[in-house]
Amino acid sequence: MQAPSANRRFVLVRRPQGMPVADDFRLEEAPVPEPGDGQFVVRHLFLGMQPAARIRMSELPSYEPPTPIGGVPYAQTVGVVVASRHPGFAPGDHVASDGGWQTQSLSDGARAVRLDDRIRPLSAALGCLGASGLTGYVGLLDIGRPEPGSAVVVSAAAGAVGSVAGQIARIRGCRTVGIAGGPRKCRHVVEELGFDACVDHQAPDFEASLRDACPDGVDVYFDNVGGRVRDAVWFLLNDHARVVLCGLISEYNAEVPQPGPSWRQALVRRITVQGFLVRDHARRRDAFLDDMLGWIGDGRLRYREDVSVGLEQAPAAFAGMLGGRNLGKTLVSI
Amino acid sequence: MQAPSANRRFVLVRRPQGMPVADDFRLEEAPVPEPGDGQFVVRHLFLGMQPAARIRMSELPSYEPPTPIGGVPYAQTVGVVVASRHPGFAPGDHVASDGGWQTQSLSDGARAVRLDDRIRPLSAALGCLGASGLTGYVGLLDIGRPEPGSAVVVSAAAGAVGSVAGQIARIRGCRTVGIAGGPRKCRHVVEELGFDACVDHQAPDFEASLRDACPDGVDVYFDNVGGRVRDAVWFLLNDHARVVLCGLISEYNAEVPQPGPSWRQALVRRITVQGFLVRDHARRRDAFLDDMLGWIGDGRLRYREDVSVGLEQAPAAFAGMLGGRNLGKTLVSI
Repeated sequence: MQAPSANRRFVLVRRPQGMPVADDFRLEEAPVPEPGDGQFVVRHLFLGMQPAARIRMSELPSYEPPTPIGGVPYAQTVGVVVASRHPGFAPGDHVASDGGWQTQSLSDGARAVRLDDRIRPLSAALGCLGASGLTGYVGLLDIGRPEPGSAVVVSAAAGAVGSVAGQIARIRGCRTVGIAGGPRKCRHVVEELGFDACVDHQAPDFEASLRDACPDGVDVYFDNVGGRVRDAVWFLLNDHARVVLCGLISEYNAEVPQPGPSWRQALVRRITVQGFLVRDHARRRDAFLDDMLGWIGDGRLRYREDVSVGLEQAPAAFAGMLGGRNLGKTLVSI
Repeated sequence: MQAPSANRRFVLVRRPQGMPVADDFRLEEAPVPEPGDGQFVVRHLFLGMQPAARIRMSELPSYEPPTPIGGVPYAQTVGVVVASRHPGFAPGDHVASDGGWQTQSLSDGARAVRLDDRIRPLSAALGCLGASGLTGYVGLLDIGRPEPGSAVVVSAAAGAVGSVAGQIARIRGCRTVGIAGGPRKCRHVVEELGFDACVDHQAPDFEASLRDACPDGVDVYFDNVGGRVRDAVWFLLNDHARVVLCGLISEYNAEVPQPGPSWRQALVRRITVQGFLVRDHARRRDAFLDDMLGWIGDGRLRYREDVSVGLEQAPAAFAGMLGGRNLGKTLVSI
């Protein structure tokens, strides 16, 4: 596979106010990167969109420095090595890395993983067999730690992380309730993903429907969204409930930190809230891949991809995901 | 020891609005209780005041039903059995139970503990050798789980729970910073209790002083107070910090649940917040007593009692504690 003559890339031209819009980014051409010693060049096949990338477009403190103005927005990528002066990566290797919104990227290997040959299609390395899937797996099993029979609620249940977390809960014998936006997603969550129920947070009777769907309260809440959805689950939590704080999609567009729910409930119910990032749990990757390939192979776990075609779709795909228009993992194929 | 001819008791005549005042309670005489089958009567020697008892004076949901109007306000008590038809408790036994704001109470033994003979003075069974001490012990060691060298912050550090939690942190080799109200308490926390530093939350430069006192951030925060003190610590927490949610003194007088801090910080720092109640940890009592008696015996752990004399002082002692006027355990001697 030959590298094209130019690298096409988006750069951030200003900090988005609220939902990102097209004019926050500029598409430009740049020279094809040349690998230095210990580096290699990846030609991207897919970009994987993650809600948390929105945090880096702002200047609020986070676990990573903000994307600078003029910098390439963050995305995980899957691609093929086209040139290498790195001993661990050879031309033709398939790798997952964080190459960003561009057609090619330079890597020193520090955040790159050569793909396990069992990962097919390659795009799954960005979704259910990649960081999104590992996030759902670690979050549910290691942070949430439900017992068989536990009442588990998952928000953004039709998304890349929530769909994996909820299906694993179902496989582990939990009563599993999803929360998603709109009837199409809710049907998908129940009929295709096998959740026991799914509640539409856009419906006017959301709070009452959620209560009805959780007649015995909630033991584990896997939260991807924060905000009013989280606040509705908060008062259904049982004694000793565990909250897996995985994401806060509903708050990423805010310019200032949003208040959380009252701690009085956490005290009287002895609730544990635990924030986590998948990067701290890379040692679980082998067990994760073995389990996931098994579950996918025997039909117990399903996934969807929401693919836009062409790099120029990146801003719209990203905003669509933040607005909840995706079903499954949001990808851009290059 | 002879039971007196009447039981003197306070009853709740209305739900306090904000800080409890004298007119929220009425002192009255009632007949001396008669033990039925499986019951016994305790003559109280001390009442132990706990901030969380304020929750039961409101109608907000909690782990216990509210004290009814006309009911006796909650307090733990230490006393002597004066009459018994219970096989496990004999006249003359010293017991800790939750007898409330009165001179005598009836018990079926379910929430009563016969005191270990090593507990002297008896009042310590309500403070550092009782529920308050066990709360500090379990909260710090089992929930907070600091390592030697961890940076530990304890709010209400001069109180019955905080003083124990912080001294155990110091004994375990942590760098220990207290937060307390006013220079007298702060001096006590450093000079008598041996904390490395103590920051006055009433001082105008509280936030800056706290930052200065925690140059390497905070690994474990033992929170007794909630509110603005908690919010100041929140943004000093390190990656993987643990918050021991033990109490919310600053919020108990509020009529509606108060918002908590933003979860964005908990996500990017991978923070765990865990609410706990000491009643879930009774199995730790033996190890606790052994450790505490050892530490007190060799002078490594100290405690103070803030004793008011006479049942009629109960409302003022309770309000004084909620207002932060106590040093150590707030007791009423009968």
